[in-house]
Amino acid sequence: MKIDKQQISDLNKSVETKHLIQLDFIANQLQHKGIDGQHIIKKLKDFQVAIPSWALGAGGTRFGRFSFGGEPSTLEQKLDDIGILHTLTNAAGAVSLHIPWDIPQNYQAIKDKAAQHNIVFDAVNSNTFQDQSNAKESYKFGSLCNSNKAVREQAIQHNIDVINIGEKLGSKSLTVWLADGSSFPGQLNFQETLKNTQDSLKTVYKSLPKDWKLFIEYKPYEPNFYSTVIQDWGTSYMLANECGERAYTLVDLGHHLPNTNIEQIVATLLYKGKLGGFHFNDSKYGDDDLTVGSIKPYALFLIFNELVYGIENNPKNPDLAWMIDASHNIKDPLEDLIQSLEAIMIAYAQALLVDQKQLKEAQEAQDIVACQEILQEAYRTDVRPLVRESRVQMNAAIDPLAIYRSLEIRKTLIKERGKNSTASGL
Amino acid sequence: MKIDKQQISDLNKSVETKHLIQLDFIANQLQHKGIDGQHIIKKLKDFQVAIPSWALGAGGTRFGRFSFGGEPSTLEQKLDDIGILHTLTNAAGAVSLHIPWDIPQNYQAIKDKAAQHNIVFDAVNSNTFQDQSNAKESYKFGSLCNSNKAVREQAIQHNIDVINIGEKLGSKSLTVWLADGSSFPGQLNFQETLKNTQDSLKTVYKSLPKDWKLFIEYKPYEPNFYSTVIQDWGTSYMLANECGERAYTLVDLGHHLPNTNIEQIVATLLYKGKLGGFHFNDSKYGDDDLTVGSIKPYALFLIFNELVYGIENNPKNPDLAWMIDASHNIKDPLEDLIQSLEAIMIAYAQALLVDQKQLKEAQEAQDIVACQEILQEAYRTDVRPLVRESRVQMNAAIDPLAIYRSLEIRKTLIKERGKNSTASGL
Amino acid sequence: MKIDKQQISDLNKSVETKHLIQLDFIANQLQHKGIDGQHIIKKLKDFQVAIPSWALGAGGTRFGRFSFGGEPSTLEQKLDDIGILHTLTNAAGAVSLHIPWDIPQNYQAIKDKAAQHNIVFDAVNSNTFQDQSNAKESYKFGSLCNSNKAVREQAIQHNIDVINIGEKLGSKSLTVWLADGSSFPGQLNFQETLKNTQDSLKTVYKSLPKDWKLFIEYKPYEPNFYSTVIQDWGTSYMLANECGERAYTLVDLGHHLPNTNIEQIVATLLYKGKLGGFHFNDSKYGDDDLTVGSIKPYALFLIFNELVYGIENNPKNPDLAWMIDASHNIKDPLEDLIQSLEAIMIAYAQALLVDQKQLKEAQEAQDIVACQEILQEAYRTDVRPLVRESRVQMNAAIDPLAIYRSLEIRKTLIKERGKNSTASGL
Amino acid sequence: MKIDKQQISDLNKSVETKHLIQLDFIANQLQHKGIDGQHIIKKLKDFQVAIPSWALGAGGTRFGRFSFGGEPSTLEQKLDDIGILHTLTNAAGAVSLHIPWDIPQNYQAIKDKAAQHNIVFDAVNSNTFQDQSNAKESYKFGSLCNSNKAVREQAIQHNIDVINIGEKLGSKSLTVWLADGSSFPGQLNFQETLKNTQDSLKTVYKSLPKDWKLFIEYKPYEPNFYSTVIQDWGTSYMLANECGERAYTLVDLGHHLPNTNIEQIVATLLYKGKLGGFHFNDSKYGDDDLTVGSIKPYALFLIFNELVYGIENNPKNPDLAWMIDASHNIKDPLEDLIQSLEAIMIAYAQALLVDQKQLKEAQEAQDIVACQEILQEAYRTDVRPLVRESRVQMNAAIDPLAIYRSLEIRKTLIKERGKNSTASGL
Repeated sequence: MKIDKQQISDLNKSVETKHLIQLDFIANQLQHKGIDGQHIIKKLKDFQVAIPSWALGAGGTRFGRFSFGGEPSTLEQKLDDIGILHTLTNAAGAVSLHIPWDIPQNYQAIKDKAAQHNIVFDAVNSNTFQDQSNAKESYKFGSLCNSNKAVREQAIQHNIDVINIGEKLGSKSLTVWLADGSSFPGQLNFQETLKNTQDSLKTVYKSLPKDWKLFIEYKPYEPNFYSTVIQDWGTSYMLANECGERAYTLVDLGHHLPNTNIEQIVATLLYKGKLGGFHFNDSKYGDDDLTVGSIKPYALFLIFNELVYGIENNPKNPDLAWMIDASHNIKDPLEDLIQSLEAIMIAYAQALLVDQKQLKEAQEAQDIVACQEILQEAYRTDVRPLVRESRVQMNAAIDPLAIYRSLEIRKTLIKERGKNSTASGL
Repeated sequence: MKIDKQQISDLNKSVETKHLIQLDFIANQLQHKGIDGQHIIKKLKDFQVAIPSWALGAGGTRFGRFSFGGEPSTLEQKLDDIGILHTLTNAAGAVSLHIPWDIPQNYQAIKDKAAQHNIVFDAVNSNTFQDQSNAKESYKFGSLCNSNKAVREQAIQHNIDVINIGEKLGSKSLTVWLADGSSFPGQLNFQETLKNTQDSLKTVYKSLPKDWKLFIEYKPYEPNFYSTVIQDWGTSYMLANECGERAYTLVDLGHHLPNTNIEQIVATLLYKGKLGGFHFNDSKYGDDDLTVGSIKPYALFLIFNELVYGIENNPKNPDLAWMIDASHNIKDPLEDLIQSLEAIMIAYAQALLVDQKQLKEAQEAQDIVACQEILQEAYRTDVRPLVRESRVQMNAAIDPLAIYRSLEIRKTLIKERGKNSTASGL
Repeated sequence: MKIDKQQISDLNKSVETKHLIQLDFIANQLQHKGIDGQHIIKKLKDFQVAIPSWALGAGGTRFGRFSFGGEPSTLEQKLDDIGILHTLTNAAGAVSLHIPWDIPQNYQAIKDKAAQHNIVFDAVNSNTFQDQSNAKESYKFGSLCNSNKAVREQAIQHNIDVINIGEKLGSKSLTVWLADGSSFPGQLNFQETLKNTQDSLKTVYKSLPKDWKLFIEYKPYEPNFYSTVIQDWGTSYMLANECGERAYTLVDLGHHLPNTNIEQIVATLLYKGKLGGFHFNDSKYGDDDLTVGSIKPYALFLIFNELVYGIENNPKNPDLAWMIDASHNIKDPLEDLIQSLEAIMIAYAQALLVDQKQLKEAQEAQDIVACQEILQEAYRTDVRPLVRESRVQMNAAIDPLAIYRSLEIRKTLIKERGKNSTASGL
Repeated sequence: MKIDKQQISDLNKSVETKHLIQLDFIANQLQHKGIDGQHIIKKLKDFQVAIPSWALGAGGTRFGRFSFGGEPSTLEQKLDDIGILHTLTNAAGAVSLHIPWDIPQNYQAIKDKAAQHNIVFDAVNSNTFQDQSNAKESYKFGSLCNSNKAVREQAIQHNIDVINIGEKLGSKSLTVWLADGSSFPGQLNFQETLKNTQDSLKTVYKSLPKDWKLFIEYKPYEPNFYSTVIQDWGTSYMLANECGERAYTLVDLGHHLPNTNIEQIVATLLYKGKLGGFHFNDSKYGDDDLTVGSIKPYALFLIFNELVYGIENNPKNPDLAWMIDASHNIKDPLEDLIQSLEAIMIAYAQALLVDQKQLKEAQEAQDIVACQEILQEAYRTDVRPLVRESRVQMNAAIDPLAIYRSLEIRKTLIKERGKNSTASGL
């Protein structure tokens, strides 16, 4: 299934007048503050977030999974789903593949399909946290960190295979997330485990094409419940430095201990030119993988405030790889992603409204009350008309969720793919 | 497979002398403090912990599962596994069934099998967190709490069915753990949801045979990640009071927010006569379901200290239903359970050593330093010889883990059941 | 010092046009949704939050305190400060006294002063967490919970004294916050401590005038670091039930373990008719006592959503006592309070915008995506013009902070009171 | 006051027989495992922990302080208190001064006094978290990080002054703990703040004598409640690398977010040769500064297990500076320190018992159950006789707490110094 741009234009009509009144109001308000609304809108139009191929199906917990009808069961269908998202939102112009779940049968066909949808191939993801049925070695006790050399070699080779697949599709980066760790004190020797991981990552890094980047993810716990080899940004940063210039830390919002100040980590990595990628989601307890902005939208804004500042002021840091990494346990995945994209755009727009000059002055004057006012002035502004306009200008939907529903897309997908289709993966 | 008591006696021989020297030493030490070692040993011999039927297979996380050879695939085989545990440890003389995973085909055969192993049927557990293939209604949005009456009725009926099954086997209590809750703000109306849950529980309570008890479990999060209907002991206690005299709160060690003082909750419930059951496990981050005593053995001791005090001083509180509720992701489940039982016995023995009279005096004198010394004196004592002797006197193993390994039990189970047998359940 | 309403009107003039344009826009927007803006504004005008007498001076941490000039050193001066706040914001029409820090010398003079400022006397607070220089007994090891009867009696008597003082001023409720607890395992007997606390609270309750209410606060830790007697809402609720009908639980936002779902607690207490009072502040780590809305404004909105629902639907629950309980370590306390009041009003206004009918329908249809949209539609709306208008209609400031600064109030206070004046209290 | 070694010998007599029986038992038990008890005892005798000068008085919280009689009010008296501790325990042979609280009036006299007590001068601590009465600039908004250059310069100069004082006494290291951070989003620019801190630390580092080390402490929050400049080990490690070879990270047990795996951090730093110092205490919620081993003794053991391993295997890492950093809010500080020293020695002894060879084999065999057994075998052993013997061999007390009490030391101190003497400091 594919949505027609004309359909969207037609459906936009019914809310166009309302939209223009709201846009006019905010544009005037911003003008009074000396802010050019079109400039913000331009930035919003350019912002693209990758959708991981595994996010199109229903997620689950260890207590089970409630399946969802019409899930994409092939890579082609996954690309179609992202195509729908991108047509509606103009914000999902990239896909992030997970290997071995998404190994293309026919590379040219896949590339054509993606091109049709205006989708590019962002970072490829390796998987060494599960055993494949044909695998010789098991990752039960770790992969790149494993004390058993044969396991490490298998995991290294897998990463090299993933790079090769990515190269054929046009990806330029590899994301490594390791579940490696331990569930019991004493289970592994921390120092040797770290050394093994370091050596393995260096070997993978050496296999990278010259124009590729390596993203090293960190996470404090789960699926291991005592220790994780790359437990925090400090470990990831240290390993990235060991690997070399094109190795970077990747921040996933849900991968932190309770109460962590994530925006400070983001700022530190940008300062050091070592922030490579960013995974969006939201959470209340742990790595809950909820819809972006559904729990802590102000924290998301504060993080975007650092990202906007860093993009402006840290030329050494590369362009970031943005991705949504959420688990759609009880919502229609496409609706969940539409809500996530909206929350990202809103936070980004709010951050773009922060008066950096005024903020710097207030910081230098150590006028804390004013600093807070400046941030909250931006955050409390209703920027949704700007976000909507950024879509209108690209022929996307003023209200993507409403159009998704009025077009009965899920119903069509179920008709096409069946009630019990299952996304490849977990 | 079944272990012969004679085999155990034979294998005990090799470590008997060593054991007796250690026992002699600790008995003398205790005698000097006016403590009768045999009295402690007697209590240890009587302490029995139920094994849940789902704990005999490998657990998993949402990222996958590493299977284990020789898993029991029928209820009979599960009972055999518990029989092995009980023969080795003399501490696992009960089973806790999970319905619908463990519905007996032939009740008499199951009862005979259990009797053979000296196993009784402890609390039965209902399951309304998963959809069964033949179910009419889905629990995706809750069960006893559901805003849809038909779902609530199905869930109530399931609980009544579970009671009926339990009755035929000799169980005397029903444990209700609800995954009910929400993953997003606004998803449900807290007040109506609580009211529905209360009404449903009351209906289940009314269906209980007169000599049965109802245990209401609580948990702050997972599998729902924004709210859980019975989020804490306060909610469970409130609901138990609404239900009636034979409704109680059940405490699972892993079901608390970070840093919760669990021993105080235990003391409060005992004081009110409302502590019904107890699920053992250990954790560092969330409901990690690790081997008991593997992470925070001192916290376990402090909890046992309250339990021992309450058992002595709160006659109104019923005898507690003890159960191990852990998930064996990377250890052989039987070895994991042996380690858990050992940790429980050690903590219990240490708690029995606390000089309650001295402690009370120090508390009344507000001599905090002395209070700590008294607790730590008990905790720092090496009580393992007492625990071992409690087994010796019951013809069980001095060192259950060593004997389990020397008898190559897992190897035999794999031979009997195959490498890929899977425990019924998740 | 006292601000003239005329001064405010004059200063409002310069931003009046801007305000009216914004107000007009939002009013129109709401009208399209069938919401009467004036109705919201009316509710905002009526909402009054008590200022605790201790919040007018600089707070501190255990690592020290940075003093602030012009702090009020008498109760009269504290009332003057609240008068300034109330004149500016029309939202601070009540004071909450702390005894013994605020014992009036001359009751009539104090009542007159308060009346001048249109300030009423809200709940009075007792203090049994510090030793007074003339005290016979020490609270080092607890007050109402103390195993020493003489200490308990002193603490009970103090609470009765506080009631008597409150009665003379027109207060109608007593707030009891207990620091009571322990810093080391074994230090106290949980059951006896709870019993002592229960008995002491009952005695205090019996001394309440018939038209008074008792508010029982809870807190998990600090200043005790192992256990706190009233550690959670469950314990407070249990104790309130033991005391009687006019005893209620008081929720302080900062008094929870990490990740607690506070809005659910609020809903549960409202459902049971047992929510008495509410202390506002914000926090990232523990009881940080930061400016309201400075860290988690969405959580504040979600809580207000439950409060608005409960006020509408739980007639059994009494009117709530609202108070700001923050510690102004590095901001000018009056500026901090102005920011807090603004954040409260914004969250309240957003909650009033939630379409409860639509929400209920979405909940019943189990349309989670729609539920979230409905809440976020209200939250993302820029309600500040409504809040400003609620002030304009009461001759208060459109922008209280700007006027506070343009009138150079702090400068005047320093001139009047000196650079080194210190608020009575800690 | 000073204790006589002879007094101790005499008091030891009454428990000597009991001690020898226990020692004999454990020595035999160890011998059977091929462990030489005397070797362990030798290591215990050599282990010395510094006492910070501020730990001899009562601590407090922001809610107040309960004073303790006989507190040392001069540096001489503080050294006397440490002398008492060291005589009793043979484990407190060092002092860590805090400037400006402990600036010697007469250096020679102070050095003589310390020599008399066999106390050496360990790391000196600077204080830039409080304003001194005569200070020109305020640290209210930070010190080494401050956006105001004059403040940074004052803070740098203070650190240089501290080094100079330390040099005169024989210290060889400077510990920098920064309270620097922010309490509100937007208050400071993370990147500039980090840069300022880095530059300031480098300047301090350059002022270090060639045989000195710099220890950089980290802490996630308190006294700032939104961000802390050096929030975690990663930031500290990064800054230490920027400074140079003799700059190291210092780990304080209480300075971590909930659930942090501290032992892994310790291992990582040892692996990198960058662990410089260690502050002992215990906690349940935050930086509670409780008696060592009073809350999580197993975690302490696991940390010591890494330390013992690192000391053996990481020759590149320097000898560590050990210190107790606790706050004695409700216990007699000297009794609290005696309990802390005992807990440290016990954990150290247990860690020394771990069979590293067996552990490595089990790790390589990925026999998790065995790994846990090996650690718990060491931990469950009652090592107290070894700890006691390590004291006996140095003419210190078998039971330091009992002797402290029987000599009525606190009573004597109160007689000598008065009931209301106050330790210099906070």
